[in-house]
Amino acid sequence: MSAPTVTALFRDQKFDALLVTKPENVRYLTGFTGSNGWLLVFPDGAITLYTDPRYTVQSAVQCTCQVVIAKGMLSEAIQEDLKRLKIRRVGFEAEHLTVGRYESFSDFKLKPAKVLIETLRMVKTDDEITKIRASVITNSKALEAALKRFKTGMTETELAAEIDYHSRKFGADGPAFDTIVAVGPNSAQPHARPGKTKINAGILLIDMGAFEAGYASDMTRMVHVGPPTTLYKKGYAAVLESQLAAIDAIKPGVTAGRVDQITRAVLKRHNLDKEFIHSTGHGLGLEIHEPPRLGRKDPTKLEPGMVITVEPGIYQEGWGGIRIEDTVLVTATGCEILTPTSKELRQTG
Amino acid sequence: MSAPTVTALFRDQKFDALLVTKPENVRYLTGFTGSNGWLLVFPDGAITLYTDPRYTVQSAVQCTCQVVIAKGMLSEAIQEDLKRLKIRRVGFEAEHLTVGRYESFSDFKLKPAKVLIETLRMVKTDDEITKIRASVITNSKALEAALKRFKTGMTETELAAEIDYHSRKFGADGPAFDTIVAVGPNSAQPHARPGKTKINAGILLIDMGAFEAGYASDMTRMVHVGPPTTLYKKGYAAVLESQLAAIDAIKPGVTAGRVDQITRAVLKRHNLDKEFIHSTGHGLGLEIHEPPRLGRKDPTKLEPGMVITVEPGIYQEGWGGIRIEDTVLVTATGCEILTPTSKELRQTG
Repeated sequence: MSAPTVTALFRDQKFDALLVTKPENVRYLTGFTGSNGWLLVFPDGAITLYTDPRYTVQSAVQCTCQVVIAKGMLSEAIQEDLKRLKIRRVGFEAEHLTVGRYESFSDFKLKPAKVLIETLRMVKTDDEITKIRASVITNSKALEAALKRFKTGMTETELAAEIDYHSRKFGADGPAFDTIVAVGPNSAQPHARPGKTKINAGILLIDMGAFEAGYASDMTRMVHVGPPTTLYKKGYAAVLESQLAAIDAIKPGVTAGRVDQITRAVLKRHNLDKEFIHSTGHGLGLEIHEPPRLGRKDPTKLEPGMVITVEPGIYQEGWGGIRIEDTVLVTATGCEILTPTSKELRQTG
Repeated sequence: MSAPTVTALFRDQKFDALLVTKPENVRYLTGFTGSNGWLLVFPDGAITLYTDPRYTVQSAVQCTCQVVIAKGMLSEAIQEDLKRLKIRRVGFEAEHLTVGRYESFSDFKLKPAKVLIETLRMVKTDDEITKIRASVITNSKALEAALKRFKTGMTETELAAEIDYHSRKFGADGPAFDTIVAVGPNSAQPHARPGKTKINAGILLIDMGAFEAGYASDMTRMVHVGPPTTLYKKGYAAVLESQLAAIDAIKPGVTAGRVDQITRAVLKRHNLDKEFIHSTGHGLGLEIHEPPRLGRKDPTKLEPGMVITVEPGIYQEGWGGIRIEDTVLVTATGCEILTPTSKELRQTG
């Protein structure tokens, strides 16, 4: 993180320090990964981390910024420093700080920051892209290793456990979200939770992501257990066509909302647009969901260095769902699909 | 969840509906486990869940309350209903709702709720205790299964992966927190993250928990790889004495703060109190950390049905740490240690 980037947070703002409370933003600016850490960021780029005695060693190892080990509440230690520095106007993250914590800063003029750290985070540095690439590769390797262990009759939970185990073995810190393994009608829920249902035949939807060195990957793949029906094959072809059309359109200057329109238009031609009940994708990085949102209303123009998912899907209650998802890097001339796993119609069992 | 309990939330309060935004509280009151769900709770015990189209099927399966599937922001749908119902005074969870979301309710008098759902949740129902017991058993089984696979030279990350894998295989939804496997000096960090350090000899600290059917377990055990030193044996005995003294004191009417004083007093007799840099324990349930906090200042009186951890520890930078932790149920006459894993000095490798 270079000072000019932090300086951007203070442009046209009426505060003399920025309070950062969201853990991913704390990590982004300082490298600190503990569960209890808040920052004060100053206009000259200086940063002070406030944490508690559990993290004395860890903060010394991870951070080059100034560190204050607070004995009590972080907000109390921060207020003491603000008083000492005679700073009264403090910016804050209105979408993260709770009302209760906000009110504990009653002596200060807390003002919502207009330029958010999430905005800076949308365009990834080379180092971040390297980490995301590693996470994506681990994720794809974990899928193949888990599918090798797959046997008909295994439960959704058991296959999810295999996925998470191999992901960790290949280098992940852990899953980036609860791994989705959904068979048959269970796959009609976009955020299905794996359960005790046995995987015997039919649709199998796997949506999985890893966190590696803090960075997320995200992929959805379909496997058909036994021979697929014509209905499934048609649905799969339509979702894949929709996904590829969106990827084809991704380049700098195109809006996130436009990419969403493209997936919907393709599915509409197949009379499947009403079955597409979520947005086309999302940014990812230190969080599994971060800006931009590839949804109807997002006017964000894509820029080189953004990393997004492209994941159209169709869902029919009682039958099942089909979703295909890659992690994609926006480049200077278009985009690069980071996910190496094949999207050909896949059958097993 | 019975109506009288919800009614307690409205006692001495000046609002006509309570907005619930914290996911664990949403789950507690309705059973809904989706990532996007807010509630309105009414004084007569009626509840309405607001969620989005991704959760149409799931909310129908999980909830018996009224469900509104919102097309846009949940806060907009909620405000429409409040206007329709002519309700203007609305309670909210000040420690969860962000300032940004709070401000979107500008037409309403949002008032912080004084009686929090977390307070109701401190005393567990029989059904919750059954789930916590299952989670604790899974957690202990996973430790033994992972240690069977342990070989000298394995990395911290690899052993953590074995723990999480077996936990899932035995029925967990996933880890309740990032599993801690810390060897040698790494164990001096109470919240160490497993890394690529090989486990060859010396102190090995394992802090692990499962979520099963939504409920947490939490346990820390020490294993010494190779013959333990006299220093280690003395430290282990002191921490164990401190932990057992605290457990011995737990019964209804004793304050959480008093239990914390007891662990500290024992460690002080061993001249180790300055190395104990966190609180003695915490409640657990739908969250891994929930009230009460077994810390110096917590005046909460223990009641039958509370489930807490007891986990004193000592930490020496450069040398390592020793922590022993059980999950404990407060009973009518004292307490029951739910964790079945032995606390005898353990050696491997």
